Amino acid sequence: MNIKPYSRKAHYYETDQMGIIHHANYIHWLEEARVDFMEQIGFGYDRAVSSGIDFALLGVSCEYKSMVRFNDIVEIRVSFASLTPVQMTVRYQITDVESGKLRAVGESRHCYFDSNKKRLVSLKKVLPELYDLFASFSPEEGAKE
Amino acid sequence: MNIKPYSRKAHYYETDQMGIIHHANYIHWLEEARVDFMEQIGFGYDRAVSSGIDFALLGVSCEYKSMVRFNDIVEIRVSFASLTPVQMTVRYQITDVESGKLRAVGESRHCYFDSNKKRLVSLKKVLPELYDLFASFSPEEGAKE
Amino acid sequence: MNIKPYSRKAHYYETDQMGIIHHANYIHWLEEARVDFMEQIGFGYDRAVSSGIDFALLGVSCEYKSMVRFNDIVEIRVSFASLTPVQMTVRYQITDVESGKLRAVGESRHCYFDSNKKRLVSLKKVLPELYDLFASFSPEEGAKE
Amino acid sequence: MNIKPYSRKAHYYETDQMGIIHHANYIHWLEEARVDFMEQIGFGYDRAVSSGIDFALLGVSCEYKSMVRFNDIVEIRVSFASLTPVQMTVRYQITDVESGKLRAVGESRHCYFDSNKKRLVSLKKVLPELYDLFASFSPEEGAKE
Repeated sequence: MNIKPYSRKAHYYETDQMGIIHHANYIHWLEEARVDFMEQIGFGYDRAVSSGIDFALLGVSCEYKSMVRFNDIVEIRVSFASLTPVQMTVRYQITDVESGKLRAVGESRHCYFDSNKKRLVSLKKVLPELYDLFASFSPEEGAKE
Repeated sequence: MNIKPYSRKAHYYETDQMGIIHHANYIHWLEEARVDFMEQIGFGYDRAVSSGIDFALLGVSCEYKSMVRFNDIVEIRVSFASLTPVQMTVRYQITDVESGKLRAVGESRHCYFDSNKKRLVSLKKVLPELYDLFASFSPEEGAKE
Repeated sequence: MNIKPYSRKAHYYETDQMGIIHHANYIHWLEEARVDFMEQIGFGYDRAVSSGIDFALLGVSCEYKSMVRFNDIVEIRVSFASLTPVQMTVRYQITDVESGKLRAVGESRHCYFDSNKKRLVSLKKVLPELYDLFASFSPEEGAKE
Repeated sequence: MNIKPYSRKAHYYETDQMGIIHHANYIHWLEEARVDFMEQIGFGYDRAVSSGIDFALLGVSCEYKSMVRFNDIVEIRVSFASLTPVQMTVRYQITDVESGKLRAVGESRHCYFDSNKKRLVSLKKVLPELYDLFASFSPEEGAKE
């Protein structure tokens, strides 16, 4: 399956008084790209949620390489840094569409949470279809197959 | 009961590239002031929510009089423009603490929503204690008493 | 000129604990639609800004008609409620793409600010090209022509 | 000098549809705590900025330990993980005031940027007063003195 990078414009309300996009907004962008990725692979985030599974966030990080300004269009590439039955680390690469320059790289680490049972679960057990989909995009997991 | 205006600092991440606080943040401030008002009158917003009552927002407006900048401290005064058993209009006045200058005035219009029955209700009937509290701050209602 | 409504998805981070899009985000959406409108008419907001003209916001309002949820796609139609050489009122209509239901209507009122001279100006005098463009979309102004 | 932890309430508009504070808002809180820290040590962020020095963000990270809900009061402790003339890493510990439970830990990495010369600078050279203040709070630097 061919995944397209997630593309979006930087909004005026996302700027700060330095005249650049405020860094906290990138965390929003990572989420947008993650949601878009799940839709592209055919298992939308809302479908996971309606199956009773949520992706509890364990941690997030972002390294800023160069500045994004109002009206710039950025592309975000999503990949898996690691995937296990109980946890995944998603990696993001934000580039400027016009210049191709790298703007930021990020990571988010998630575990799987059963919202009815209120406890952590193995995605491999509770939603094997989604786990296998993720695995097909994970280099480590893919190597094992 | 003597209500103190709600006071807060303007944050860096609330600025935009014009070097002023972006207008959408004022809508957040109105909500903060509303929540603070309810706490001061002894009936916190979370207590209303846990009673099954939510304040569905019908409309909001804000008129911008002068600019707020990073680190400015503003005070927000909350009052009732109108109050009926099924609807209320809350009024807000945002002033700069240091200069006393008026920064903005706003209004929010709410009805009362029973989150279990999923329907609009009369606050006077379902939470008379809170309605009477509100009424004691409403000039129109106060005049009737 | 045929203007397409501005279309966008509601993001997860825009939801609140009632499970709906928090009302303050609509104010962001109005801005996104306004910026998109200016691009479509061929005079981007950044071009106005680089000409030294900013659109100082005098007031904003939004009436909420029905709820928007995560992943809903909304369309925003932009029109002029009024236009004069020194002030304009922009009107917005937010509808749900799938159901066609009206979600909200909004208005924003702006004057024109010369960012170098730090004073209000007549758009008709300082940027007649943009003023005429706006006027061609304004029913009142259009009627005069 | 005795630095008080930065204290703030979690706002309603910061919640998401899981009923908890959305993770991106923590990044805002780190900034608020950083700005508060600088004010407490007597060298406000705006004073640094008006000296022509800005703190360019190189990276930010946050590890989420337990959930924060609407109206919870959190305390944020700020310290230096490292400090050199050209870069600093600030560490944050977010705890719940009522229970004392750890909610999150974060880090932000900054370099110093001369906004007139548009280039990175040594804080030790351009603002030695501020550098020495920071150093007095940095265990590593303090050990050298």
